[in-house]
Amino acid sequence: MVQQLEATALDKRMLAHLRAIVGADHVLTAPGDLEPYASDATPLFRARPDAVVAPATTGEVAAVLRLATEHRIPVTPRGGGSNLAAATVPEHGGIVLSMTRMNRILEISGQELLAVVEPGVSVAELADAAAKQGLLYPPDPGSRTVATIGGNVATCAGGLRGLKYGVTRNYVLGLEIVLATGEVLRTGGRLWKDVAGYDITRLLTGSEGTLAVLTEITVGLLPQPETSRVGLAYFSTLADASAAVTGILAGGTLPATLEFLDRRCVNVVEDHARLGLDREAGALLLFGDDGSPATVDATMLRMSEACRAAGGRGIQLAGEVVTSEDLLAARRCCLPALARLAPVTMLEDVTVPRPNLPAMVTAIDEIAARHGVVCATFGHAGDGNLHPTIVFDPADEDARQRAERAFDEIFHMALKLDGTITGEHGVGATKRPWLAARLGEAQLALMRRLKTAFDPAGILNPGKLGS
Amino acid sequence: MVQQLEATALDKRMLAHLRAIVGADHVLTAPGDLEPYASDATPLFRARPDAVVAPATTGEVAAVLRLATEHRIPVTPRGGGSNLAAATVPEHGGIVLSMTRMNRILEISGQELLAVVEPGVSVAELADAAAKQGLLYPPDPGSRTVATIGGNVATCAGGLRGLKYGVTRNYVLGLEIVLATGEVLRTGGRLWKDVAGYDITRLLTGSEGTLAVLTEITVGLLPQPETSRVGLAYFSTLADASAAVTGILAGGTLPATLEFLDRRCVNVVEDHARLGLDREAGALLLFGDDGSPATVDATMLRMSEACRAAGGRGIQLAGEVVTSEDLLAARRCCLPALARLAPVTMLEDVTVPRPNLPAMVTAIDEIAARHGVVCATFGHAGDGNLHPTIVFDPADEDARQRAERAFDEIFHMALKLDGTITGEHGVGATKRPWLAARLGEAQLALMRRLKTAFDPAGILNPGKLGS
Repeated sequence: MVQQLEATALDKRMLAHLRAIVGADHVLTAPGDLEPYASDATPLFRARPDAVVAPATTGEVAAVLRLATEHRIPVTPRGGGSNLAAATVPEHGGIVLSMTRMNRILEISGQELLAVVEPGVSVAELADAAAKQGLLYPPDPGSRTVATIGGNVATCAGGLRGLKYGVTRNYVLGLEIVLATGEVLRTGGRLWKDVAGYDITRLLTGSEGTLAVLTEITVGLLPQPETSRVGLAYFSTLADASAAVTGILAGGTLPATLEFLDRRCVNVVEDHARLGLDREAGALLLFGDDGSPATVDATMLRMSEACRAAGGRGIQLAGEVVTSEDLLAARRCCLPALARLAPVTMLEDVTVPRPNLPAMVTAIDEIAARHGVVCATFGHAGDGNLHPTIVFDPADEDARQRAERAFDEIFHMALKLDGTITGEHGVGATKRPWLAARLGEAQLALMRRLKTAFDPAGILNPGKLGS
Repeated sequence: MVQQLEATALDKRMLAHLRAIVGADHVLTAPGDLEPYASDATPLFRARPDAVVAPATTGEVAAVLRLATEHRIPVTPRGGGSNLAAATVPEHGGIVLSMTRMNRILEISGQELLAVVEPGVSVAELADAAAKQGLLYPPDPGSRTVATIGGNVATCAGGLRGLKYGVTRNYVLGLEIVLATGEVLRTGGRLWKDVAGYDITRLLTGSEGTLAVLTEITVGLLPQPETSRVGLAYFSTLADASAAVTGILAGGTLPATLEFLDRRCVNVVEDHARLGLDREAGALLLFGDDGSPATVDATMLRMSEACRAAGGRGIQLAGEVVTSEDLLAARRCCLPALARLAPVTMLEDVTVPRPNLPAMVTAIDEIAARHGVVCATFGHAGDGNLHPTIVFDPADEDARQRAERAFDEIFHMALKLDGTITGEHGVGATKRPWLAARLGEAQLALMRRLKTAFDPAGILNPGKLGS
């Protein structure tokens, strides 16, 4: 069993140890300095750490972890702090291990189609550096300019290209990790095909900082597609939009982009950004693909036809008049537009099998109406990953409770529809109450045993996942 | 720690228990019946089990495992028996759990792009059933007509399409598993995006039957490409062929097929099959792609040009005169042609980063010559996965020892070139001596702790991987 940790303040002797390891400048303890590390991008979850420690090398990480295991000090690894499930909120206090100083791109190889990076590199920096060499790093979460690659591996981040390209897991080739006991291991390597030993690389992907600290990451890259293009269509109902998605996939295409906005989302975005969207539409579908120009043109035509066959109207294809970026603006505005409606924006992340998407969105609307909450839904129509978003004023305790009750029903409905409580954001602290319903007690018990195999003292991100 | 198991024969009472669970017809104990289960497709490794037990349901698997854990009886799960690393040889005796009665395809969904199958379905059966609905199951190991999907998941099997499509790991969405203690768990599900909990699905993929028994498998499928096409080119040296591969990938294409044969392989195949191959060539490269006809035509042209630019000659593209199947015959004949040379064919499976492929093949040739062994190499040029194959007469003890010494040097050279000891066949019993050199002692210790977290009594495929 993982041992219970005391959320006691670090004493002076321990702080002196930590300063000796990483340098005095890289140990923060003043309340004002700790404040930004008390929360991540998740509203309403906060817990102040006793210290923030920012190591610069694998050796420093190992020394910090050895000390922490010896003295049973909680350690919560943190990248850009953009997590939406409170996975990096240090609920048990102790140390926040900020990985942002380890931010070097060590290698990008066009010949081997891979990059070797430290965990603190942002996803956008990695993608941009790869693009300069004609290479694509496919995972592209909305937080890509802030989020680090370490955090992306720790949450198995997804993004808009999941259907065609898969998620972070599909691109992690190798890791350097430090166990809670300070041992440094290398898992996987530079190869797409390697079956020597258990797949610890993939086990760590999505483990939310509870099993080990990542200190170096090797990711696979793809050749950059020659071109990419996006189109847009409106539908009377989300069921029609879903029928269009089915038609698109039946045509033998797994397109790079298949995003949708529900009617409320379309209207909120239009209020905010005046893009000229059709406010009467029941759903807006963005579809797009990348590849050689001839292929993309053919695919875009096929996809437009599938939209039309399913009752799509107002179809626009990016070209000389509107660009793909113009069309994608509708999707990119969802979160900022929703965030303007009320002080708190709770962005959730359920996934259901694609055929169950209309039923799920209908259920979300019904649940929201019944609880009297403002909820808009957008997401990845291609892989069934929905982001129902509820906004409210936290000063209104009743509104907050109604939002919580609505999400509780939404999670249970996702499970009923063969879905899951989180597609790409992680479990963290926010989804913890529903994890047993998703996995069952026997699997939770197995997860706790795995946690102990990695982290016998239970110091790493205690309270999350296998803890 | 995993406990040591005694390789004692099963007593009568235990056999009666087993017969009560699966039915008397499905417990084999006669020496003649046990013989086929004493080995898999790996030469020179054998160990007879005490019984072969063939369950028909998940409940029967659970009952057998509970009994085995209680009485510390080794259990080695087995699919088609085509493993090339002796991973299914029951070195500690006990029970071979034959999964071939659980051979139903439960569902193929074109709308959800997935299949749900029992583990005993052969990979070819699954692929054929998917193809009938216009769907592709991409992993395609050479053993696909014999190998089961359960065995493919247990080894994370690869195949000829790895560069473009990835390996088995990329397609496993969900599992039903039975732990050694008899608990039945469902991991993952029907979704491509699901991060609720540790990725136990992928941890089991490639775990070679040491962590749990798979009883149901959900795999993702892709739309079937409209067409596929293959071409062939000869090169003076393997370095030239590698330069062609680099040129092909620099052109922004990750093709579906990039296979090579070295000079000796070309000659052995030509002796065997009289395909009219160029015996003087230093290397033969097969290249191909799939997709829409226009894209494939364009890609084939680009690939031919890249071959020509790297000194390729005798270039043939499948069309009206020769078919893709004609051209692929050279690759498909490798193993049968080599197998005719001597009674024992040791087919190995190292992988190195693509740029190190010529150095690796040169080293293999030098090592083979120095030890006086007959060795030919073919493999997957796109992902650096090589199959050096040594043939010899097992009656010649000196030849056998020379082969072993040669492979020892080959494995160490692969590691020196940033590669691995197995790309797609698994560790099993054959690669066990080199696992510590690949992973390090700390990782082996972690693997043993993970093994214990799943299988506290150490009954599952003892002696392999984490045992």
